[in-house]
Amino acid sequence: MDKCLITTVPFGENNRFPLEILESNNINYTINPFNRKLKEEDLIELLKNNNFEYIIAGTEPISRKVLEAASNLKHISRVGIGLDSVDLIAARERGIEVSFTPDAPAPAVAELTIGLIIDLLRGVHLSNSEMHRGVWKRHFGRRISEINIGVIGLGRIGTRVLRRLKGFGTPKIFVNDILPDLELNREFKLNWVSKEIIYKEADLITLHLPLTKKTKGMIGEKELNLMKKDALIINTSRGGIIDEQALYEKLNSGCLAGAAIDVFNKEPYEGPLNQLDKCILTAHMGSMSVDCRTRMEIEATEETIRFIKGKPLLSKVPEEEYALQKEYL
Amino acid sequence: MDKCLITTVPFGENNRFPLEILESNNINYTINPFNRKLKEEDLIELLKNNNFEYIIAGTEPISRKVLEAASNLKHISRVGIGLDSVDLIAARERGIEVSFTPDAPAPAVAELTIGLIIDLLRGVHLSNSEMHRGVWKRHFGRRISEINIGVIGLGRIGTRVLRRLKGFGTPKIFVNDILPDLELNREFKLNWVSKEIIYKEADLITLHLPLTKKTKGMIGEKELNLMKKDALIINTSRGGIIDEQALYEKLNSGCLAGAAIDVFNKEPYEGPLNQLDKCILTAHMGSMSVDCRTRMEIEATEETIRFIKGKPLLSKVPEEEYALQKEYL
Repeated sequence: MDKCLITTVPFGENNRFPLEILESNNINYTINPFNRKLKEEDLIELLKNNNFEYIIAGTEPISRKVLEAASNLKHISRVGIGLDSVDLIAARERGIEVSFTPDAPAPAVAELTIGLIIDLLRGVHLSNSEMHRGVWKRHFGRRISEINIGVIGLGRIGTRVLRRLKGFGTPKIFVNDILPDLELNREFKLNWVSKEIIYKEADLITLHLPLTKKTKGMIGEKELNLMKKDALIINTSRGGIIDEQALYEKLNSGCLAGAAIDVFNKEPYEGPLNQLDKCILTAHMGSMSVDCRTRMEIEATEETIRFIKGKPLLSKVPEEEYALQKEYL
Repeated sequence: MDKCLITTVPFGENNRFPLEILESNNINYTINPFNRKLKEEDLIELLKNNNFEYIIAGTEPISRKVLEAASNLKHISRVGIGLDSVDLIAARERGIEVSFTPDAPAPAVAELTIGLIIDLLRGVHLSNSEMHRGVWKRHFGRRISEINIGVIGLGRIGTRVLRRLKGFGTPKIFVNDILPDLELNREFKLNWVSKEIIYKEADLITLHLPLTKKTKGMIGEKELNLMKKDALIINTSRGGIIDEQALYEKLNSGCLAGAAIDVFNKEPYEGPLNQLDKCILTAHMGSMSVDCRTRMEIEATEETIRFIKGKPLLSKVPEEEYALQKEYL
């Protein structure tokens, strides 16, 4: 009987359908017994002592060491878009195929980002915590159409953020990506600029990037120092892109007006940002809408079934992702 | 020299231009010396002891008793849209003209409402307060396009909320207003229904109504009992429309999934809603974006100047508002 390890939790909780797919195909599955994000050693332990052939994976580290412990592993199906957690090169060396679900989480992440933009601009988080302490203070805010917005990364999520911003008037939008996609200029009024210009000119910066060796620590003390005194910054992409300690120090010293951080270098997050009222913190919830999560789980499960049945995979990780890791590992 | 009382605070703080308008027209003005929302007795005191001819007004009660103490008053210029605070009938009896700034606050209120919709749907407020207490819990949420949204009141603000919702896909939208504006059906896919249907069917209800005798206490225990167990409710219009005590009891007993309340029966708010994490509270900040607030202050000041100079007023309170108060007072 085929053996499948589901590491991402919760799984099948809001909608049992992905589990039913496995059951109706007679796949023997095990859901992460730790019921939390697995560490490298947990995963090695699990894989060594069981003959798992397939993983339906979250963001836990599937490193070279982990893969070395997984002698029967044939296929990894990532529930989500980021591939920073999987050593693609080591997987390929061992003949392990990797798929992902790049489209499913995008609408939910984009929508959360818009909410965080408005929260930061209007001080909703500040007033909410003051009101709960019995303090009545009316905060002045800014509207989306009054500010310069900087969007770094214009892939599936960044472009969806732009599309949702359209309903709010016409902010000045600065954008940056490796390859400017000039097709987008037909739909939006964009200013393609360097990241440095965004750091200097934007009132609010939002990141929609993968975590790679090139983006890791991309925003540190130096970059934060370029930003306006009342700048706001949002990260709903991947932890590690902003240096958390540097961000804490900048916010704490009164530079930067606020931040909203959904993703962290180490999750669950344990760090000093939670001492700062002006930093909105959420627990990696970008893709956590019932519909997107369900879609991700179903897509990842169906990909596993396709692999098992020898059918063509629908969302194999593309060659660029391997190239990206090769270049920077 | 003309004497003008400015009751709304802050005023001219982010942008001195409204004060400069008064100064360049040689208007002698006094800004609210209490630096907080005035009570009826404060206002009577201020008006009795000074010969104010003009008020640039906030939401403090300009009642019949207040107007009786204001023997020189000729014009009230409301900074904002709501007229529930002004006894229009008593003002007319005394020959006092009333103007307001109905358009200026709408974009800021609509934008805040969208932020609160996303916060409630995704549990941003819950995760933020948990994270600040060191608790990592990933909340499942819903996206705008997945739910039934009920919009009660489709005036300047309600329609702007609809326009901003468009970027987020196609939620099922239930709407209610006194007179269905079928023109809106060209722009949006709307279901015109009774308020009762909205209470029963909507996953999220947002109110965009004036406070009148008809809307006061409109949503009490009975109406809250009609709502879904996991319904969400937002009020960025006027306090008093939702019965605060009934809302507290419903939320506290585990019915209703959450609420976001920006306006209160008595402001500053002192009540039990601040004991509830699932109730987002903000300090009447709907119109508090720098640009909208500045526009409101300038428009109200210019209207005062027009009145003084005998020029035609641009935004006199329309007859319907008088009829509304006559009918219900």
